[in-house]
Amino acid sequence: MARKRVTLQDLADALGVSKFSVSRALSGKPGVGKDTRRRIESAARDMGYPLTPEQAYNKGQIWFMRQEIDRVSTELWSNILLGAEQQAEAYGYTVVPKQAHSLFDGSLDEAVVGLILAVPYPDEISGTASGFNLPVVCSGYAGPLEHIDQVSGTDWEAGVTIARYLATLGHRKFAFVHGDARLLGRAERFRGLCDGAKEIGGTVDDLVFDEQAGLRKPLIAYMDAGGKPTALFCAHDGIAVSVISELALLGIRVPDDVSVVGFNDFISASQVAPSLTTIRTPHVEMGAAMSRCIIDRVSNPRFRTVPPLRINLVPELIIRESTGPASPVPWQRR
Amino acid sequence: MARKRVTLQDLADALGVSKFSVSRALSGKPGVGKDTRRRIESAARDMGYPLTPEQAYNKGQIWFMRQEIDRVSTELWSNILLGAEQQAEAYGYTVVPKQAHSLFDGSLDEAVVGLILAVPYPDEISGTASGFNLPVVCSGYAGPLEHIDQVSGTDWEAGVTIARYLATLGHRKFAFVHGDARLLGRAERFRGLCDGAKEIGGTVDDLVFDEQAGLRKPLIAYMDAGGKPTALFCAHDGIAVSVISELALLGIRVPDDVSVVGFNDFISASQVAPSLTTIRTPHVEMGAAMSRCIIDRVSNPRFRTVPPLRINLVPELIIRESTGPASPVPWQRR
Repeated sequence: MARKRVTLQDLADALGVSKFSVSRALSGKPGVGKDTRRRIESAARDMGYPLTPEQAYNKGQIWFMRQEIDRVSTELWSNILLGAEQQAEAYGYTVVPKQAHSLFDGSLDEAVVGLILAVPYPDEISGTASGFNLPVVCSGYAGPLEHIDQVSGTDWEAGVTIARYLATLGHRKFAFVHGDARLLGRAERFRGLCDGAKEIGGTVDDLVFDEQAGLRKPLIAYMDAGGKPTALFCAHDGIAVSVISELALLGIRVPDDVSVVGFNDFISASQVAPSLTTIRTPHVEMGAAMSRCIIDRVSNPRFRTVPPLRINLVPELIIRESTGPASPVPWQRR
Repeated sequence: MARKRVTLQDLADALGVSKFSVSRALSGKPGVGKDTRRRIESAARDMGYPLTPEQAYNKGQIWFMRQEIDRVSTELWSNILLGAEQQAEAYGYTVVPKQAHSLFDGSLDEAVVGLILAVPYPDEISGTASGFNLPVVCSGYAGPLEHIDQVSGTDWEAGVTIARYLATLGHRKFAFVHGDARLLGRAERFRGLCDGAKEIGGTVDDLVFDEQAGLRKPLIAYMDAGGKPTALFCAHDGIAVSVISELALLGIRVPDDVSVVGFNDFISASQVAPSLTTIRTPHVEMGAAMSRCIIDRVSNPRFRTVPPLRINLVPELIIRESTGPASPVPWQRR
């Protein structure tokens, strides 16, 4: 059966608007409200109305707000941007990277349909972002009950998974190695590790250090104070690279004397020797999910009344060389 | 003295066009050619003609073409994007990241004014990019005499500088550690190292390996074959992280037994222990220069006849813990 060609009248009927409005909207002429125009454009696409290239593209800009150079997580943000961009493109939207100060200039470009907050601490800009009355989505953690969407990994689950995996290798004494305690994602991974350790009657030390000042002194101080873990879970792969190479300088073998686990599966996890067992968070897919949050709220009337979403993507455990059976004797400097 | 207000007539006189054209162009009405419109907009901005926000912004899109996830150089591309974006914004342009396949779809969005090729091998897409008759700029290396602009670091100078710096510490026997030999930038750094070594009667070994398969076997094979350098220059910081951590596993001390130098000053250079002496390439400034190449050719009539540019930005030597006086005895596994 040949498919019937979709007409302006079909669109008008489906949306409950006049044929005149549909015509004006699709030809880019004034006289149609912004929201109605978007609904019409979206329906035309969904129902297969034949659009010119100009109609099919440029449905609006999604601004990708960045705050500073977050050098530790460059790969994270870069992959999120890629995912956001590819997903937006598939729906006719354009992702434009912008510095966060653009939000504080008072008004946004008319073409902007939504905001992605690609910053480590979204609460620093989410209030201002929400003031524009556009869909807003952050990665990391939004404030409690805050009316923006959020896309993250399952941080607590990752912590539990690592404790359970290490338990199968006989580990019972863990330490969590981390720096900036403001980041909720890290705190959630720590909590997961503790909960997983509890299941097997294990213990977790808290080895915290200043990421600017370096790991060497705090690591040695921890050892000298009698810290004797058989496995270290690091808040991110960069810390794990520091841990592995500092331990090598102290004559402590990984994984023979102590196992080390990272988080993120950044490229350095494959470059360091021994290569790093880590958690691979689906960054590209997180970016795609962020664009979908915006696009759904912009173009899909069913989403108008959906409350703010907290979407968590499940990561994957990647086992490499840095983990092995728990050492029967405590680590020792040589 | 109060500054005289710039009028439409002033703009018309300065550009040698009619006042009517200036008025049409600045009010966004048809009847003015694309090039003339851009010249008028640019002159209005430069001469301080009072523009509405709509006139002052959205002068066009610069597409930032990417080919694939280049995981080894994510920080490089991310910083280049940031610099390109900030510079473009200052001039009223918008940088939009796009996958390279967008170039092969036949036609570009009318809003696009120029193309940044942010890919490791620009020759794979530069032919297609040039076909749109817009300004094109690449980082890395354009083809010989190719009619696109190019922004790079001074790779050869970096190689010479490292040889000379290491010479002050008594080094004479070098090795260059690298993988993908297609990348001209790496070849240029190698050549610089060789030329610098020649100045002092030194030697340079070529330690090449498959970056996918890993460094361990080729490194051990090189040692077993009698390779006895006192300093290793690595093609990028990721390789240097592999070198430092593999050497630690072999009981070879850095820098006591052998010095190690990286390239790029990625975050991992500060995370690894010992921290890495490296070359800091000005990535953000390279991105800014790429946007300027496009903007100058789009908006500045004086640039119409300027031949393709090869702009090289000078990097900086960052001395950290991984380099020291040349060891009087050859390295040895323990």
